[in-house]
Amino acid sequence: MESQSQIRVRYAETDQMGVAYHANYLVWCEVGRTEFIRQLGVSYAEMEAAGVRLAVADAHLRYRAAARYDDEITITTRLTEARSRMVSFAYRLTRNRPDGSHEVVAEATTDLVSIDGTNKPVAIPADLRRRLEAAVGSFP
Amino acid sequence: MESQSQIRVRYAETDQMGVAYHANYLVWCEVGRTEFIRQLGVSYAEMEAAGVRLAVADAHLRYRAAARYDDEITITTRLTEARSRMVSFAYRLTRNRPDGSHEVVAEATTDLVSIDGTNKPVAIPADLRRRLEAAVGSFP
Amino acid sequence: MESQSQIRVRYAETDQMGVAYHANYLVWCEVGRTEFIRQLGVSYAEMEAAGVRLAVADAHLRYRAAARYDDEITITTRLTEARSRMVSFAYRLTRNRPDGSHEVVAEATTDLVSIDGTNKPVAIPADLRRRLEAAVGSFP
Amino acid sequence: MESQSQIRVRYAETDQMGVAYHANYLVWCEVGRTEFIRQLGVSYAEMEAAGVRLAVADAHLRYRAAARYDDEITITTRLTEARSRMVSFAYRLTRNRPDGSHEVVAEATTDLVSIDGTNKPVAIPADLRRRLEAAVGSFP
Repeated sequence: MESQSQIRVRYAETDQMGVAYHANYLVWCEVGRTEFIRQLGVSYAEMEAAGVRLAVADAHLRYRAAARYDDEITITTRLTEARSRMVSFAYRLTRNRPDGSHEVVAEATTDLVSIDGTNKPVAIPADLRRRLEAAVGSFP
Repeated sequence: MESQSQIRVRYAETDQMGVAYHANYLVWCEVGRTEFIRQLGVSYAEMEAAGVRLAVADAHLRYRAAARYDDEITITTRLTEARSRMVSFAYRLTRNRPDGSHEVVAEATTDLVSIDGTNKPVAIPADLRRRLEAAVGSFP
Repeated sequence: MESQSQIRVRYAETDQMGVAYHANYLVWCEVGRTEFIRQLGVSYAEMEAAGVRLAVADAHLRYRAAARYDDEITITTRLTEARSRMVSFAYRLTRNRPDGSHEVVAEATTDLVSIDGTNKPVAIPADLRRRLEAAVGSFP
Repeated sequence: MESQSQIRVRYAETDQMGVAYHANYLVWCEVGRTEFIRQLGVSYAEMEAAGVRLAVADAHLRYRAAARYDDEITITTRLTEARSRMVSFAYRLTRNRPDGSHEVVAEATTDLVSIDGTNKPVAIPADLRRRLEAAVGSFP
């Protein structure tokens, strides 16, 4: 399974180099992750309301090309691993060219740990874990 | 009473116009407000822990000159009004020139309402309110 | 004329009060402004490439209700004034409820001045100004 | 050589989990990098004015502990490699406890490539490169 989300680069996200500031890519990955979890049939907002939060423990980004103001970016998200207290996601961010082709602007991975309201590690609820395990995949 | 805070414009805060993106000025005002409240002898973090939060209800910014990457900005904060459930702050943001002079980059005002953990309006605790009332001032 | 843009509140945009941080509303207004200008048949990116930039000179926000993580927000944008070197926009931000109704979360206005690549005021190009003047409207 | 920078976690930087949002750590690393380059006797602002920019090509962050609102964070920055068109930095972010001790909140590395005004790779100017090479070090 993979999810696809679209964002448009905001003026606020550019920097004086004339490109999207690199930290924003992590925000876009989170937009992709939210969508992926929604497609599992769980909203992340509901998960949090139930006392389970996913905190980023590790993030790795490789920047391939600049994203620019008003570019349409597609975030493709896959779940690469699902364990009792940790899940790993991989992301591919592509720029949609006017001619319909795509250019990879970045690839990223994040590991997230499941924590409770007091920031202690906690097992992912069984129902959610089953759905996560069934959705594991990876980029070819 | 007035407080003074210093920030340095971050690269992340610039946009492709080569200046600090305008929404960041609101963040800097909040840096000034945090410092003002700290100087009253209360930390905003403690206030929140006690269940009282100040939510911005109104904000007005007038931009006078561009702030640029690596500029040192001084945020001068004054409390212009303190009522039972609302406080108003005024801010003057100046750029520190290398020759020691200052240039006003923006002026702003914000009204904040006191709310509890469920976002309901609540009276500011008596002790804090007394300190706030004693600190009311305004820009000449 | 008015434009409508949709955004979904990002996790990155929340703060520890559990609501969208107030400075982000200015970013969302800019998303609305970009869309409004695009609907005029000009992209803001092209305008900048032609050497004309619109810098925010004044911003006023009134917050009516909290926007929360994953809320869908509609930004309705109108152009309230178009002069030789200045344009004014008004925004209404509404939260889309699951039942299809809307709640106003904020109203805002911004004044923007037209500047060239050296940050000097410059007249808005005649063609763009005609389109802007024809699009002036206001909220009832 | 290493540089040390201090920041205080801003309210704007928190998220609804009650901790600093993870993408902000990349911004803080950039604050550290700016300071490191300044201590070499070059300001990054001057470097950019001379047409050389350092674009982030790779970033890796490992989050060790939560940083919270109003925490004082020290960013220790080292330059781990300096080549003709690429430099690598390592960062250690620590939270300053009231008792004077420190807790590591994150460690990170970034690779940056030297590009010109048209985003083409370009050799780092000889003078700067000599200073960079002399400053290479690493965390024990």
